[in-house]
Amino acid sequence: MKIFTFDTTLREGTLGEAVSFSVDDKLVIVQKLDELGIDYIEGGWPGSNPRDREFFARAKDLRLHHAKLAAFGSTRFARNSIEQDRNVKALLEAATPVVTIFGESWEAALSVAPEQHLRIVAETIRYLKDQGKQVVYDAEHFFDGYEANADFALRTLEAAQKAGAGVLTLCDTNGATLPSKLAEIVAEARKRFDGILGIQTHNDAELAVANTLAAVEQGCTLVQGCMNGYGERCGGANLCSVIANLELKLGHTTIGPEKLAGLASAARFIAELANLPLRDDQPFVGHNAFAHKNSVHVGAVLKDRTAHEHVAPEAVGNRQRVLMSDLSGRGNVLYKLKQHGLADRLSEEAHRELLERIKEMEYLGYELEAAEGTFELLVREALNPGLKFFEVEGYEVVTKSAGSTSRSTATVNLRAQDGVHSATASGHGPVHALDLCLRKCLATLYPQISSVRLTDYKVRVLEPKRATAARVRVLVEWSDHRKSWSTAGVSDNVIEASWSAMVDAIRLELMRLTEKDESIERAVEDYCWGV
Amino acid sequence: MKIFTFDTTLREGTLGEAVSFSVDDKLVIVQKLDELGIDYIEGGWPGSNPRDREFFARAKDLRLHHAKLAAFGSTRFARNSIEQDRNVKALLEAATPVVTIFGESWEAALSVAPEQHLRIVAETIRYLKDQGKQVVYDAEHFFDGYEANADFALRTLEAAQKAGAGVLTLCDTNGATLPSKLAEIVAEARKRFDGILGIQTHNDAELAVANTLAAVEQGCTLVQGCMNGYGERCGGANLCSVIANLELKLGHTTIGPEKLAGLASAARFIAELANLPLRDDQPFVGHNAFAHKNSVHVGAVLKDRTAHEHVAPEAVGNRQRVLMSDLSGRGNVLYKLKQHGLADRLSEEAHRELLERIKEMEYLGYELEAAEGTFELLVREALNPGLKFFEVEGYEVVTKSAGSTSRSTATVNLRAQDGVHSATASGHGPVHALDLCLRKCLATLYPQISSVRLTDYKVRVLEPKRATAARVRVLVEWSDHRKSWSTAGVSDNVIEASWSAMVDAIRLELMRLTEKDESIERAVEDYCWGV
Repeated sequence: MKIFTFDTTLREGTLGEAVSFSVDDKLVIVQKLDELGIDYIEGGWPGSNPRDREFFARAKDLRLHHAKLAAFGSTRFARNSIEQDRNVKALLEAATPVVTIFGESWEAALSVAPEQHLRIVAETIRYLKDQGKQVVYDAEHFFDGYEANADFALRTLEAAQKAGAGVLTLCDTNGATLPSKLAEIVAEARKRFDGILGIQTHNDAELAVANTLAAVEQGCTLVQGCMNGYGERCGGANLCSVIANLELKLGHTTIGPEKLAGLASAARFIAELANLPLRDDQPFVGHNAFAHKNSVHVGAVLKDRTAHEHVAPEAVGNRQRVLMSDLSGRGNVLYKLKQHGLADRLSEEAHRELLERIKEMEYLGYELEAAEGTFELLVREALNPGLKFFEVEGYEVVTKSAGSTSRSTATVNLRAQDGVHSATASGHGPVHALDLCLRKCLATLYPQISSVRLTDYKVRVLEPKRATAARVRVLVEWSDHRKSWSTAGVSDNVIEASWSAMVDAIRLELMRLTEKDESIERAVEDYCWGV
Repeated sequence: MKIFTFDTTLREGTLGEAVSFSVDDKLVIVQKLDELGIDYIEGGWPGSNPRDREFFARAKDLRLHHAKLAAFGSTRFARNSIEQDRNVKALLEAATPVVTIFGESWEAALSVAPEQHLRIVAETIRYLKDQGKQVVYDAEHFFDGYEANADFALRTLEAAQKAGAGVLTLCDTNGATLPSKLAEIVAEARKRFDGILGIQTHNDAELAVANTLAAVEQGCTLVQGCMNGYGERCGGANLCSVIANLELKLGHTTIGPEKLAGLASAARFIAELANLPLRDDQPFVGHNAFAHKNSVHVGAVLKDRTAHEHVAPEAVGNRQRVLMSDLSGRGNVLYKLKQHGLADRLSEEAHRELLERIKEMEYLGYELEAAEGTFELLVREALNPGLKFFEVEGYEVVTKSAGSTSRSTATVNLRAQDGVHSATASGHGPVHALDLCLRKCLATLYPQISSVRLTDYKVRVLEPKRATAARVRVLVEWSDHRKSWSTAGVSDNVIEASWSAMVDAIRLELMRLTEKDESIERAVEDYCWGV
């Protein structure tokens, strides 16, 4: 059966304490979710803050292939006329095909008289319908409200449906309800209402996914949730797990099997933009979701995959991993190089040197698995000894601040095959200034590097006990519009660490342009993403 | 009804890729779990590795008040006699009152003939019973096995029970089973067997807690799980959530209400020993489990706590928190200030200005909820207009690199009440050099600041599209050995952003020393609550 997916990562998800997306992030995520085959994407609450208003203004230019964008808001305020209500106005200005309106179902939680509340719900929905909107009605506190006064809770749904709401979403707002009770209440609502019933759950009791599935078993045909389970408090229903369960275990259709294979990659992409690590133990899509450590299990898995894998990892775009304690990171490297036919191209000495270098870098804190660009550069340097393109002779960067303005100026000296290149440039910050210098120095000799640009930059302290003198790791993400990769730099000087990551990225691009060897790229990808 | 708790954090939990306990850790954890009122604690698999053998040898000296220790192992190997079996021998040497034996329930996964398997299960259990052990039988792959061949799966249970197993634990080894199906199968088993049925689930489909509760609803009276949901792949059932749900929502008795108030602290303690951060969004016990950000919700929470709290946070030893951000209306800030008696001390204008500043800073990307130090400084500045301690006149920092060495030198000019202070210092990096200068400038006037030091430093890019010219947010964590707090800086220059976070931290410390207003500290502590 077709079950509609309603993603609210960009609204409910941003209520998670650690989650914060820029407007740019949000626009990119909408496209990613559209690509994944999500049916409805709730982009934010235009009436509540300027960032969401800006998002909807800019979202008008997006061309979505499948998904419909929704704006979220409350019913009109009791003291406002509908035409004068700022929130409702902001919803219309958002210019989305779909509007989500939430209204209270719990009589005790009302701030107006029950009959007035029902009128406000109906009037708001009817007004939006008249303006051509498809309306999703979020029945806030539906389950708590139902238990306190079933009749009133059902009357709010009735008012919303009669006014033209196309979807009635039953919300377990506090995440308080147990699956058995929730199933019972959904079944009652299903008996009384035709059309699409949606379900919105929260993970406060660690039951959000189970509650969503229970609701679908009782006849809900739209599931609300957030990618990676982001959201306020303990998060909303993890849409990744909901989709995978519905498709693979309950036999329903959500995004379909083809798009499902993009699930793990979409989850990781959104985690990256949230600047939160994707949880390794996240069901279906996490790095460890199909990892086997227990020696008994490893034996069993080798014998029969179904013995310890509840679904095929490939179905959700994930992979099986077997963790073998006697296979160190270095052992894995060897394995990977062999697997991709690269080991034979290395002399024994080059091979040993490569392993030594990797060992040393990991000891320093590089974490090469997260910096596949740096790892690829190491492999390429081992395969092409002496091919350096340029040597850094030195650099200097000065940051000056007076009053409220600051400015950085850098000077860089490089030795390339045609001699020494020097450049000086000013930038917004030291990394910007150094970047400009590096490009100036190499522009005539290697004009191709102009397509490589920084897309993300992260710093973390490796030895917190040393305070401001601590060693840091800088992880930089780059893109040349074709693919993206990361390089890392480690130093007790954040400028030096950034510079080193920057130089590696440019050098790698030059290497790639010189030797377009796909097997190297594949080996690196394999190593960094695990078997 | 009394439901027995069976913790396997020290066995199943350590199969989690990131989890690794020393023998000392394990001994301490056993005592913590005993204190929490857990009934059974599975300490490890003595037959599988020397660390677990050492653990059991040393655990003999532990004096437990309530819990019984269990050692885990397999049935005897098919080719060994029971007396000669190394695994069984190791189980006896562990000298625990309880032994867990696992045996296959899935006919297809057997490595011996079915009848022989049943004999081995029975013989192993009977032998251990004869040696005075209480035996828990883990029916591995019970649900998959039942679906493939119900008769055989039930016969394994029968063999185990007849041989003397006191507990039959039904294991959803792969985490494959949906709650509705699992409930059905448990109900069938319940019909056929008296005595204690246990349940062991895994979180591969994000359903472990729901499955455990469903099993209890069908008559299981022992729950297996791991603290914080540690374990192989996606983890085992999170015993924290299972206990809280059973006690607070299903009305059963596990550890009892008094011990339940120690749940959050036990969860955090074990996470500390595992060297894993306790997930902020972890149900019941996480830092954010009762945190409110959405302004509509905050208003509702003020009116009635049950409107957005499914259980009382104090019941599990947790606390309510209200967060700041641009998604909050006036509600959140007002709440904090009122709650701590600060609202009256602000003029209406100062109040409005504070709200405006917070909104603007959030718009720039500050994320004040993660930077409670910056928030506290804003509040203190509003309460004490003009109290600045010092003004920054300017700074300059030079980073030079030649060959493989890099060095940063900074100069800082500050105006304090006794005139201008200048200092120059060299450091490992620009932040270190600036930090040294700041301290030099203020050392004579404010020697107290020497106790404040950086403990963590994070950078993220806010506008990736602007590449190296993008605005960044620097988040710095500080400690004065008494408490810790974070400050944030936002700028397109990473040095300026770091400097601004640094100056805020020092200024805040001076504010705190000047006005030891406990209500401010409490307001912020409440907000940044960390144990």
